Amino acid sequence: MNSFKTIEWEDDFIKILDQTRLPSEEIYLECRDLESVAKAIEMLSVRGAPAIGVAAAMALAYESQKFEGNDFELFLSKVNDMCDRLRRTRPTAVNLGWALKRMFQKVLDSKNKNVSDVKQILKKEADIILNEDIAINHSMGMFGQEILPDSGTVMTICNAGSLATAGYGTALGVIRAAVEKNKDISVVSCETRPLLQGARLTCWELQKDNIPVILITDSMAGYYMREKGVDIVITGADRVAANGDSANKIGTYSLSILAKEHNVPFYIAAPISTIDVSAQTGEDIPIEERSKNEVTQIKGHQITPENIGVWNPSFDVVPNKYISGIITEKGILRPPFIENIKKIVSN
Amino acid sequence: MNSFKTIEWEDDFIKILDQTRLPSEEIYLECRDLESVAKAIEMLSVRGAPAIGVAAAMALAYESQKFEGNDFELFLSKVNDMCDRLRRTRPTAVNLGWALKRMFQKVLDSKNKNVSDVKQILKKEADIILNEDIAINHSMGMFGQEILPDSGTVMTICNAGSLATAGYGTALGVIRAAVEKNKDISVVSCETRPLLQGARLTCWELQKDNIPVILITDSMAGYYMREKGVDIVITGADRVAANGDSANKIGTYSLSILAKEHNVPFYIAAPISTIDVSAQTGEDIPIEERSKNEVTQIKGHQITPENIGVWNPSFDVVPNKYISGIITEKGILRPPFIENIKKIVSN
Repeated sequence: MNSFKTIEWEDDFIKILDQTRLPSEEIYLECRDLESVAKAIEMLSVRGAPAIGVAAAMALAYESQKFEGNDFELFLSKVNDMCDRLRRTRPTAVNLGWALKRMFQKVLDSKNKNVSDVKQILKKEADIILNEDIAINHSMGMFGQEILPDSGTVMTICNAGSLATAGYGTALGVIRAAVEKNKDISVVSCETRPLLQGARLTCWELQKDNIPVILITDSMAGYYMREKGVDIVITGADRVAANGDSANKIGTYSLSILAKEHNVPFYIAAPISTIDVSAQTGEDIPIEERSKNEVTQIKGHQITPENIGVWNPSFDVVPNKYISGIITEKGILRPPFIENIKKIVSN
Repeated sequence: MNSFKTIEWEDDFIKILDQTRLPSEEIYLECRDLESVAKAIEMLSVRGAPAIGVAAAMALAYESQKFEGNDFELFLSKVNDMCDRLRRTRPTAVNLGWALKRMFQKVLDSKNKNVSDVKQILKKEADIILNEDIAINHSMGMFGQEILPDSGTVMTICNAGSLATAGYGTALGVIRAAVEKNKDISVVSCETRPLLQGARLTCWELQKDNIPVILITDSMAGYYMREKGVDIVITGADRVAANGDSANKIGTYSLSILAKEHNVPFYIAAPISTIDVSAQTGEDIPIEERSKNEVTQIKGHQITPENIGVWNPSFDVVPNKYISGIITEKGILRPPFIENIKKIVSN
């Protein structure tokens, strides 16, 4: 459906759409080693929990091909180092660790094989992860679109779209699926300061797909709900705890409270790989803090006085009490989340 | 106390600090006619409800000096035209209309005087309005500082400071008064998209006064309350209705809901001239919508795709149910607001 690919294999490199340059420029990075993919993740050239899981798996598969010889233990140790490097890129999204764990397990399971075969297995597994992600998003879309009205407005924050995944998107995938069912859906995109993923990325990809979108500043969300009305809020997630508490882009917590105050249902759309049952609650989810320059500068221009104190967490946590449901590829999870998450994860 | 003046008389012009250039440049406009002050108000070079009331009064006083002859009726008609032009600059802040009405009344009351004397009366009245505004802010500060803890954090949005008034400020005046009483107060400034008055102006003037300030994006307000804690939210207002509903910078409505959810008291600081008893409720307050470019461009740089739909109201309305109190120069108004506003206005 999309006229662009967030990330894909080329003959001899990994091709990544540089999202820091959107929407003004559509430029693709050609990554020929793990380090350049790791940097692309750190610099947010590729971002979104599912997409960075896919990118990490592909980087690992790519770099491991360079290994020479047939010493399995040495290979295992190198792959372990690669995982370490990739895991250090960003702390909050659990899909990154999930994808790396899955790849590493493939190596552990291949102890008796030739290293050249294991390298092929890794390449194939990364392909599976990439294609699975798209399929999962379609499935999530199918379940999610059912709760959307035939005609209505969805509010979202950040970008949980094609650009945040291997394709189709999580929150925006639900919207795409509804539009494919001929529902008349328009989107209200919160701009998502500091890095403006809503203004830059969500508006860009919805415009490409001819899905109507209205842009507002994050500060307008409550007043929009009151004055114009919103049928539902749907956002992505970077990590969902065992009790349903969900970490997502900073601003999502406020949005969930505003939704509650206006009786607007608040949904998370996230693949099951985003659920981290080792985190009992949101308290156990590490929250990345990024450079103050993200707040004090826009496109390299200083917008504040010099030497101002800044707080810049990239994410916040929505407590489960504000969440109406979590849309997954296996159906929609509803309260009580602890029970229902346990069931879906063990299936 | 301040090392800068928002607006002041010079020998032959009105000197206005151009707030659109702050904080990177401290440049003063030299206005030599009413039209250039009107433009300065429209372009937000001078902004903040009390400050634009003062600016309008000064512009009227300045321009009226140019009238030649002694035809009172002609003079009255010219002054009326001037008021019309100034009133058209911005619709939401009532202080503008309040100041112009007060000036116009002075002319009406001077029917039997020489026009040259009336011109002097207008000049004097504008001076009084300017000096009164500073005195009123000090009085508001005195009442307001009493509700601040000996040590604590105040969250605010936009700029309700010296820059929004003739000096000292409304919400920031309360903070200044507490600091003068040796209270240990730090400020959390919401950046205030789209025009970043919090990031640009509030941070600038607090830094000048050595009052500790932390800058956050508007989207972080709820999570800041939850994670770091805030003792009180205080904002300014552009118009307060007879029932206490208060219009203020877009984002204030969301902030009031977030405050309620975190049991943080929410106060408005505004002079009595901001109360418009002709507006029964917030529904009767006109809300200015401004150009979409304010949202799609920052410092002239396009940050979104071209031709994106945008909603850009400059203000929103906080319903009285979310307001703990309204700090005025005559004391703090508390619920029931309808009764207590009636009392204070008729006094």
